[in-house]
Amino acid sequence: MTEKRLPFSRAEFDRRLGLVRSAMANEGLDALFVTNPSNMAWLTGYDGWSFYVHQGVLLGHEGDPVWWGRRMDGFGAKRTVWMDDDHVSDYSDDYIQSDERHPMQTLATLMAERGFEAGRIGVEMENYYFTARAMEVLRTEMPKAAFHDATNLCNWQRTVKSTDELDFMRKAGAISTKMIEGIMERVEPGLPKNDLVAEIYRDALRGVDDAWGDYPAIVPLLPSGPDAAAAHLTWDGRPFAAGEATFFEISGCHRRYHAPLCRTVFLGTPPQDMLNAEAALVEGIEAGLDAARAGNRACDIANAMMAVLRKAGIERSGRMGYAVGLSYPPDWGEHTVSIRESDRTELKPGMTFHFMPALWMEDWGLEITETILIREGGHAECLCNYPRKLVVKP
Amino acid sequence: MTEKRLPFSRAEFDRRLGLVRSAMANEGLDALFVTNPSNMAWLTGYDGWSFYVHQGVLLGHEGDPVWWGRRMDGFGAKRTVWMDDDHVSDYSDDYIQSDERHPMQTLATLMAERGFEAGRIGVEMENYYFTARAMEVLRTEMPKAAFHDATNLCNWQRTVKSTDELDFMRKAGAISTKMIEGIMERVEPGLPKNDLVAEIYRDALRGVDDAWGDYPAIVPLLPSGPDAAAAHLTWDGRPFAAGEATFFEISGCHRRYHAPLCRTVFLGTPPQDMLNAEAALVEGIEAGLDAARAGNRACDIANAMMAVLRKAGIERSGRMGYAVGLSYPPDWGEHTVSIRESDRTELKPGMTFHFMPALWMEDWGLEITETILIREGGHAECLCNYPRKLVVKP
Repeated sequence: MTEKRLPFSRAEFDRRLGLVRSAMANEGLDALFVTNPSNMAWLTGYDGWSFYVHQGVLLGHEGDPVWWGRRMDGFGAKRTVWMDDDHVSDYSDDYIQSDERHPMQTLATLMAERGFEAGRIGVEMENYYFTARAMEVLRTEMPKAAFHDATNLCNWQRTVKSTDELDFMRKAGAISTKMIEGIMERVEPGLPKNDLVAEIYRDALRGVDDAWGDYPAIVPLLPSGPDAAAAHLTWDGRPFAAGEATFFEISGCHRRYHAPLCRTVFLGTPPQDMLNAEAALVEGIEAGLDAARAGNRACDIANAMMAVLRKAGIERSGRMGYAVGLSYPPDWGEHTVSIRESDRTELKPGMTFHFMPALWMEDWGLEITETILIREGGHAECLCNYPRKLVVKP
Repeated sequence: MTEKRLPFSRAEFDRRLGLVRSAMANEGLDALFVTNPSNMAWLTGYDGWSFYVHQGVLLGHEGDPVWWGRRMDGFGAKRTVWMDDDHVSDYSDDYIQSDERHPMQTLATLMAERGFEAGRIGVEMENYYFTARAMEVLRTEMPKAAFHDATNLCNWQRTVKSTDELDFMRKAGAISTKMIEGIMERVEPGLPKNDLVAEIYRDALRGVDDAWGDYPAIVPLLPSGPDAAAAHLTWDGRPFAAGEATFFEISGCHRRYHAPLCRTVFLGTPPQDMLNAEAALVEGIEAGLDAARAGNRACDIANAMMAVLRKAGIERSGRMGYAVGLSYPPDWGEHTVSIRESDRTELKPGMTFHFMPALWMEDWGLEITETILIREGGHAECLCNYPRKLVVKP
């Protein structure tokens, strides 16, 4: 058997399968086909940059799941999953970018072999890597099956983290802290943005102590001045300018676990309205952290923050955070719980969130955020450790 | 109007629209909805890390196209597209990760407003960011429309590069060269892999001279020894070992254009079969480059390479290259022309390929590759510049 590299124990593997099967039973599913790379990794251990071709994990109610994908990635699966080699099923390269055949034809055959030909099968219809074409080919090949949208069914089982997962996230948090420290040390007028991103990546990948750095699921974002309103434009070669605020949205990553952290710098003397907003934001974060207790609800965090912002006369709408943990590009959110006024999910010990009450104004943005852990007793714990303030470099 | 940052001229914008409209007419399409971020960028200039939410470009036969996406990304679009602000259409954050509404409902409204309610509309059904759910919502909302799979329709118009695009790719090639030089200088037994990746990213992002570094669409891959068979597993914190080969699959990136380059190092004394394979591979690449001439076909490159490999007794199947250029994660291939024995696409001046005749054996892998440009006269030009050999560090 191939040498294995597994991030969790066999007992934890069984626990995860049990959670997902219970959710499948609630939905009346005979089988679940998971394509979200984060769900694949959490369920089986699989970790590879291969989500640009069709792949997935097929899970019924009996026995181990089956990893399914491209032949060359099957070799990677055999090294990284809890199942034995008989539970790795592959298709040949003839199916890659072919006009004549589609990989889902081989998945349909596999599903039939496993007895799901006329089953009720959950698929993640809103996952990035499950295309409209994939769905159509499956429907054509399996006319007797009933497909059910099971987007996020598996994601929801991931919200409460195990001790090992929290260990990975604390390490990611230590890397995030180091990244922000490096940024604040180096940023200055005249420094080309790409040169700073080079150092941010270097810090992220070198990691901290025994926590080696993995690639974050989102590239560093660092818009300045009025570009804060267009927060997802990436960097170029232009330099930082004096008299502007820049916010940094980054995350360290260890074994695919993230702990995002955002801080803002002003190069020069910040305007009074930004300082006022900073004071309200910091007070609001403290209020939010205090509301982030097991037994409370996700909306309680948002409401606590909003009360402080409203008192300070700041208008804001939209989410102010989301569940976070194991992720692959293009997003590090878990797509389950949101910290917003309409989300009544109960907070449980072991849940982790990026609490991100960013303020995006017309000509500046202010981001001061924390990745937080809901605890058994008391208020939430922050997994990163950097002063909660607007950094001013005169 | 917002300050613009555009990577191509208005004339080039018009030329690209013309190419796509002509292909649309050939397919009898009234409209095309493009979701592939590379196609969005090539058609309009839009460049942002926002493809994790629904977005796209809607193009009819008259007037400018419409950028459509999330409100905060609309601000980014106004800064980066050739169209005026009236041709940027957005949806509110209520549509993000909502169980009650879907962004495609707003796209359906936009399409109806533009007169496509009962039209024949091309959609990219096999694109990563066009989910099965997106297709179903569109079908439900637009029962009179006929949807047609137009995957890669736009990609095919991108195969021949403009002078500006080639300038970006040459810059990406210079960055790739620098990255491989840095790798070969630094790699040695005992060096943790993540520490080398930290330097690779630093070189990639610092760039070369006036060519600032952008993020590559794929992370560096660097499997060692038997892991070469599982080429898409990413790095961890373990060190390089003596007596093993490692291949490096990397690309520099400038303004989203790539020029991938792979080289292999052996730490110690390579076995004779690897040296034999190296000699055949290098001779095969030269034969392939000589066949890579305007007027020849893509298969001619593959056949020339295969003839040399067969003569050396090396078995190999599968693709040995693909069209390359403008790309976003998770892949830097253009998904059009393949360098393989079955692809009879005519080679034209300005086409660019990653010519990648990798050899993946049981216990080692050998990758020596080139990004090449088909020229008006003579054989192909290589866009990177590193000795074409197995690097041996004793």
